[in-house]
Amino acid sequence: MVSLLEKSMEGLIKVFHNYSGKEGDRHKLSKGEMKSLLQGELSDFLAASKDPMVAEKIMSDLDENRDGEVDFQEFVVLVAALTVACNEFFMESMKN
Amino acid sequence: MVSLLEKSMEGLIKVFHNYSGKEGDRHKLSKGEMKSLLQGELSDFLAASKDPMVAEKIMSDLDENRDGEVDFQEFVVLVAALTVACNEFFMESMKN
Repeated sequence: MVSLLEKSMEGLIKVFHNYSGKEGDRHKLSKGEMKSLLQGELSDFLAASKDPMVAEKIMSDLDENRDGEVDFQEFVVLVAALTVACNEFFMESMKN
Repeated sequence: MVSLLEKSMEGLIKVFHNYSGKEGDRHKLSKGEMKSLLQGELSDFLAASKDPMVAEKIMSDLDENRDGEVDFQEFVVLVAALTVACNEFFMESMKN
């Protein structure tokens, strides 16, 4: 039986490859692929942020090695940060 | 509609709280809770490692602030590292 944690980890890997395989290096997200990923997977988050440049800003923050592409490790750092923020929001809302 | 990425992030939060709420601080994993989590969620991974102390070692690696407990942020660091390792394994096996 696959556990919830394993399913979640598998989900992260699947999401990344669903988008990274579209153009260029199949194991990295180009700018266009990253934008599609954000729009397809985190549209509520993008809508909540009123900044039209948010996708570009995320991209340049993530691209640590400045090669214009985001690899899986850089992607996981984004997801980890977002998940920590969501968890804090969730804990706050439980207090009230 | 909830996306696969959102579902995966939610899964990580749920797994953590399923175990962290059992004893002591409800928002942190004690040593016992961490052990249950590893056994319940990553039993295949534990079985693959032949080291009987692996749970203790993971715990002490994760507990950055040395309070004997693992908070959500410390937990996410573990999951991120494991997921990157899984992704590399997955990419290697696709090559062959």
